[in-house]
This record gives sequence, structure tokens and C-alpha cells, in this order.
Amino acid sequence: MSASQRGTQPSMALLTDRYELTMLQAALADGTASRRCVFEVFTRRLPAGRRYGVVAGTGRVLEALSTFRFADAELEFLREGGIVNDQTLEFLANYRFTGEIYGYAEGEVFFPGSPLMTVEASFAEGVLLETLVLSILNYDSAVASAASRMTSAAGTRPCLEMGGRRAHEYAAVAAARAAVVGGFAGTSNLEAGRRYGLTTIGTAAHAFTLLHDDEPSAFASQVASFGDATTLLVDTYDIAEGVRRAIAAAGTGLDAVRLDSGDLGMVAREVRDQLDSLGAAGTKIVVSSDLDEHAIASLAAAPVDSYGVGTSVVTGSGAPTCGMVYKLVQRENSDGVMEPVQKASASKSSVGGRKAAARRVDTAGRAVEEVVVSGALAGWEPAEDSLRGLHVPLVLDGVVQSGFTGSDGVTRAAERHRTSRAELSPYARRLSAGDPAIPTTHIAV
Amino acid sequence: MSASQRGTQPSMALLTDRYELTMLQAALADGTASRRCVFEVFTRRLPAGRRYGVVAGTGRVLEALSTFRFADAELEFLREGGIVNDQTLEFLANYRFTGEIYGYAEGEVFFPGSPLMTVEASFAEGVLLETLVLSILNYDSAVASAASRMTSAAGTRPCLEMGGRRAHEYAAVAAARAAVVGGFAGTSNLEAGRRYGLTTIGTAAHAFTLLHDDEPSAFASQVASFGDATTLLVDTYDIAEGVRRAIAAAGTGLDAVRLDSGDLGMVAREVRDQLDSLGAAGTKIVVSSDLDEHAIASLAAAPVDSYGVGTSVVTGSGAPTCGMVYKLVQRENSDGVMEPVQKASASKSSVGGRKAAARRVDTAGRAVEEVVVSGALAGWEPAEDSLRGLHVPLVLDGVVQSGFTGSDGVTRAAERHRTSRAELSPYARRLSAGDPAIPTTHIAV
Repeated sequence: MSASQRGTQPSMALLTDRYELTMLQAALADGTASRRCVFEVFTRRLPAGRRYGVVAGTGRVLEALSTFRFADAELEFLREGGIVNDQTLEFLANYRFTGEIYGYAEGEVFFPGSPLMTVEASFAEGVLLETLVLSILNYDSAVASAASRMTSAAGTRPCLEMGGRRAHEYAAVAAARAAVVGGFAGTSNLEAGRRYGLTTIGTAAHAFTLLHDDEPSAFASQVASFGDATTLLVDTYDIAEGVRRAIAAAGTGLDAVRLDSGDLGMVAREVRDQLDSLGAAGTKIVVSSDLDEHAIASLAAAPVDSYGVGTSVVTGSGAPTCGMVYKLVQRENSDGVMEPVQKASASKSSVGGRKAAARRVDTAGRAVEEVVVSGALAGWEPAEDSLRGLHVPLVLDGVVQSGFTGSDGVTRAAERHRTSRAELSPYARRLSAGDPAIPTTHIAV
Repeated sequence: MSASQRGTQPSMALLTDRYELTMLQAALADGTASRRCVFEVFTRRLPAGRRYGVVAGTGRVLEALSTFRFADAELEFLREGGIVNDQTLEFLANYRFTGEIYGYAEGEVFFPGSPLMTVEASFAEGVLLETLVLSILNYDSAVASAASRMTSAAGTRPCLEMGGRRAHEYAAVAAARAAVVGGFAGTSNLEAGRRYGLTTIGTAAHAFTLLHDDEPSAFASQVASFGDATTLLVDTYDIAEGVRRAIAAAGTGLDAVRLDSGDLGMVAREVRDQLDSLGAAGTKIVVSSDLDEHAIASLAAAPVDSYGVGTSVVTGSGAPTCGMVYKLVQRENSDGVMEPVQKASASKSSVGGRKAAARRVDTAGRAVEEVVVSGALAGWEPAEDSLRGLHVPLVLDGVVQSGFTGSDGVTRAAERHRTSRAELSPYARRLSAGDPAIPTTHIAV
């Protein structure tokens, strides 16, 4: 099937590091390619000072599996470049993932060492997914982790994602999705709206006001097109004048004004007073302009109704990736017996063997411990009532399980995040630097 | 034309912030949509302490123009969501960019306020490109700017991009391309190899060694498949033993060994001595493991032959975006006369009017000043011999000019970067924090 026959989704099979294919070639030749393997995704640490991370991208990983196919265009590139031999090309032409994937549900919070995703398959099938799985989880989780801090700081006020212009054009779409997983209410990104059913927002930039001969004609034009259910941007020229003109153009039923510059806390108070004095007590105030979780927190006492967040959320607010790795932790030996494996040298040791995980929650509903369980079989569930199992089946016998992909998957992930974050102590919500919110304990099953 | 008829390239038209379409709708209704406008891309500042930035993504912007089309799928989403009215949908269905774009050649260095790209078109045509242009230039330039510092620190030793797993899966492809613009010699990313003709590299991960019953069988397998023209990863277990086994498996003609952990400088010296004593004086040493420009600089005296760089290059080494903005700086008024426009309020003032730029180069070939010229017409070229004009025509009458796109465009951009960076003083190459390498002067034509 060629890329064009698949419709709008080009193959994702070459979103891959070359070494995965060279390893595959050698393993096909020596017979180890068919060995059953367990690969594990985890991160050794959270970004400095962060108290928890948020898993995001799981649904996108599952969606990507169906477009991870080596079609003519991909095979031709590999053949012409002499990247792999004919035996490998033949394997790739027939590639599809037939293994099993378990992992944390999207939206779940995580900690250093949490076994976030476990891929069990032949070496050949599993090794090819390393780059794609990590690219998606590392970026999406970085955004969701930052988003969660922002929505936590914003309390009941909505956060709106407007940062697509500060990220790669397709990363922008994933960022909008991940921000919603982390609690954002909507996004300015239209493609994210189309793909994932997210609420899209946006009305006008300064360019719209500047395009017109004066501010009143710009406002009149916008109101003529969208009525008073719109947001007028009032800081192109003088703000007090802008607010007066906004209400003059739209009336006191105007939905909102937006402020995108200056000392937002101070200006918001002045604008609130002015709106109230003009009889526009129901007109909301949206603020934007380089907001991050700290700026949002500092505006808690200001009369602000929602936050437009750009750069900081799409770049993970100082932590643009999560540092997740995809490690072989267990494999069949030459006698067909599964054995744990681990790298032994210097600075990057990791724990071998398949692992499961559970969260210990006390009787008050408070999360108190992350329990990582070595030696657990796939599908392991804790016997103790105080432990909530964290691994859910995502792919069984190559079949993606339902509920994780598409717009339903995003809705469920956002809900999962609200629930999981609510289990953490208030300490975990502090923005200041600190240790992980709960300790991680390693036990054997 | 539907997305599938276009083959592998889905439309990029919805990689757009919603407000661009709402502004368009209001401007179509009030007649200002056809006003001739000039939009300018620039950044107000470099990341803290950086001495120059590197323009990248220009070729990708030009490639994207041809897929920026609103086809059935996109129009249906906008109609069903009630995002814009029928008049706007009709305009979008027929949209194609017919204006002009001038800008810095890809690979050129830049400074705060440099007018990096100038888009001249009707408001309707120009406003729609804001998000796409910024997404591409902001990300790609962030990567190229970081890459340039790394290749500068590496001197004549090649840097290889291996960071795709730490970036969004398509950002990874753009990152590989931008890294090469910034002087990298190759990438592990296969899709970047396919799209842009980049050199791809990669041999094996620790998983390949762990897959096998022991290290000698892993090395034997790799050598059986790839001969001695390969790189053996020697730090899965004991490094000295790994090196001994590598040469035992491949012979003294082995191309390279890779070290991915530990104190790389110290270990590289030990491994170099060991290789030499084994008679493998020609076997090179590749190092990887969380390298950034500072780590590369600190390895200058170590016997290292090339650097594999991951996270830090794809995330812009602390500056994952450039903060570039796309501002309306000039537009036709109601009398059909072009006028400069600018935002007047508080903290984000900018200079109105169309601008060109030139770099002043002294008789020794040293760049000494960035000259931003207000009031210049499109295609302006400096009259003085000491000034090199920085704006090149990228799109004329809607037609993308040749030489900027595809793999040729990347090659030319990398060459342009080498030349432009070589004009900067040695001061500009310091990694320590400092001011922009040359001052920017604003003059009127």
C-alpha cells in the first residue's frame, strides 16, 4: 500500500534512528531477531525541582502503530542508500507489530523509575519502535507535565494553549493535545481541533487593529462579524481608551477583552474597574503575554478570568523533553528461557527484568508511595486494597485496545489526570523546587 | 484536490491559529482583506548570553507554501465547527499565496531586530501564514543556533545528530536538517535522510549487546553483517574488555568504537592507548552521552574523533524556541497609500515600516555591524562596498525562487552558515555568556 493509498497519513516508519535497522539486520542474520524481548520506557529523574511528571502521548503512540509500515517509498530509500540488505528489506515490507504493550494510562502522574510503558515482542518487532515511542512520549509528557503545573496554579480559571508558533508546526498539534491532557480548556491550534476534537479559541491579533485606519473601525468590524460573543484585544494603543471603545462597539454584553502586554496584574485591576463602571460587569478579562506557571500564580489575586499560555507550555516550561529511555530489560536466551538483562558499566545503570507498578493510596485517598514491582508477569494486579495497579493493557496480540485513541482518548486522559493529581498532597502542587511528591519503592513480586 | 491526491503531503493549512481565520472573515466583510500589507519576522532578543543566532527553516517554509491549501477535509472541519462563514470558506478554497517574500538566506547569522523575513501580500494572503512561518523558523533556528555553537566548539571533529527521540517525531526530522545547517555532518534520523539527502549514521545500541548471550557474540554478529566498517559500542559491560573484544571480533581495521557513559575524557584516553597498543591506531573513538557545547569544548584535548549529540541540539541547548514574531509593519490605508504601522502600548513596542538589512564587513573580512534600513523598498541593495545586503528574494509573484528548497537548499544553507560565521570575530565563538557579537544600527534609507 503506497502512502497515497493510505490517504492523509504518510508512513511513520522512517521516524526512526538508523541503528534500529542495522541491529535488526544483524539479528535477522544470526537468528536472535526472533527472541522474545521486553523493552521498558522510564526516566531516571524528573526535571530539576519538579515533584511529579504527567504521562502523555500514549494515545498518539497507539495511533502511530497503524501507520508504522514500510511501503514502497520507504523501502526504496533504504535499498538505494544501501542501509540494509535484502533479507531485512523483506522483513520490513511485511512488518507489523504483533506483540503486547502495557503501560501507565495516559494522564497518570509518574516519578523517577516508574515503568511507564512495557513492550513485549520479538526483538525485531520491538526494537523498531524505540525512536517513535520515545519521541512521542518524551515531548507530549514534557508539555503535559508543564501544563499540569499551570492549571494547578490557575485553580478554577481556564488555561488556553496559544503556543503553536513557538514549536515545530506538528509538535504544535501534539502540544495542544498534551496541554489538554494536563488540564487546559482549549487551544488556538486548528489542526488539533480537527484531529482530537479539542475546543479551539481565538479572535484577533494586533495586526487586525493595525490593518484598519483606527481602533474603532477595527472593533466595529470584528463585532459586525462575530457579534458581542467575541474577545476584543484592547492594548494596541491606549488601554483605557481601548476598553471604552470596545464597550462602545460591542455594548455591555461583550464577552471578553484581552490584555497582551504590560503589568498584567495592575492593568487587569484597572480594566476590571473600568468595565464595571461602564456597566460591563459580565465582560471577562483574558490575559496573555509570556505567561508560565509562576506568572499565573502571581495573578491569582488579580481579576483575571482566563489565561492564554504560549511559549512556556509548548516548550515544557524549562524542560522541553523528559529524558525517557527505551531499554531492553528482559529477553529469551538461547535455551528459550526469559532472563533479565541490564547494562553494567559506569554511570547509567538500570534495573533489569520486567516490572509492573502500583500506587499506594491511604484511607484518606492520598497517594503515599509508588511501588515498582520486579518479576511481575504481564497483566499483574496488586492484591492489596491500598495499592492501585498502574499498568493497563494498551495492545494485546498486536490489537490496540479501545478507549485510548482519538478524541475519546484525550478526554479520558484529562479525566485520569485530574483524578491522579487530586490524590497527591498539596505539597506536590507547590511550584517551588522540591523532591518527588511521593517516594518510589522497589519490591520483588 | 484532496489530501490523498496530493500523495504523501497532507495539507498544512490548519497548522494555524484560529484567530487568523476570524481576522480574515472580518476583513473580508469590511473590505480591508485586500489591503496590501507588509509583515516582518524578527526577534526582540537572543537567548540570554548568546552572541548570535542562525536562521534556519527558510527552505521548509518555502516547501510548506505548496501544501498550504484548504481542501475538502479542512473546509469541512471549519464549516462544521462554525469557525468561519461561507464567504471566508470560499476564499480559503481558492487560497494560494501570490505575494512576495524576501528574507535572510538560510544559514545566515542574525541579531536582535534583524528583519529575518518580509512577507508582502494582501492582508488576507499574508495573515494566514503567521503561525506556519513562525513555527518553522522558531524551531529550526533554535536548533541551528545551538548546533552552530557545538560545531564551533568541536572544531574540525564532526558532530552527529542523534537526538530525535528527545523531540516530537516530526520535529526530529526538522532538527536533523537544522543541525546540518548549523554544521553537523550527519544524523541518525532516517526520514531526514530521505527527505533532505542528509548523511545518516548509526550502528548499534546497548540493546543489541544485551540481546545476545554475551558481548563477543554480539560483536561477531555485527561484524558478520557490516564488516569492519562499523562502530562497536564497547561500554555495555567492562570497557577495557569491550575494546579488547571489539578488536578481536573486527580486527585492527575496525572503523570505530563508541563510548556512551562515564567520564568521557578520561575513558577516551584509556581507550585510545588500548587501541594503539592493540595495533588499531586507525580505529576512531566516537563519544555520546548528554553532550552539549560545553561538554564538547571540555573534550577538545581528549583523543575523540567525533561527537554524537542528542537532547541538547534538538532542544536548542536551553533555548528551544527563538521568540520570533510576525508583525504587520506597513499597510495600505483607505486611500491606497502604504503607511508604516506599529503597536503603541506598554512593553512590546516595535519599529513600524518595511525594513531591509545589510552587514558591514571591514577590509579584513570581519563583520562589524548589522545595519537595519527603514524605508527600503523590496529588493533594496546597499550601495556601499563595505555593506553586504542580507535580503534575498525567496518568493516573487507567488513563485518560490530556486535554490532554497530540498537537499540543495540544505547544502547551500550549511555553506552560507560557514561563510557567515567565519566573518564573526573569535569573540562571537565564545560559549560564555555575552552580548551580541556585533551591534545593530538602525538607519533610514
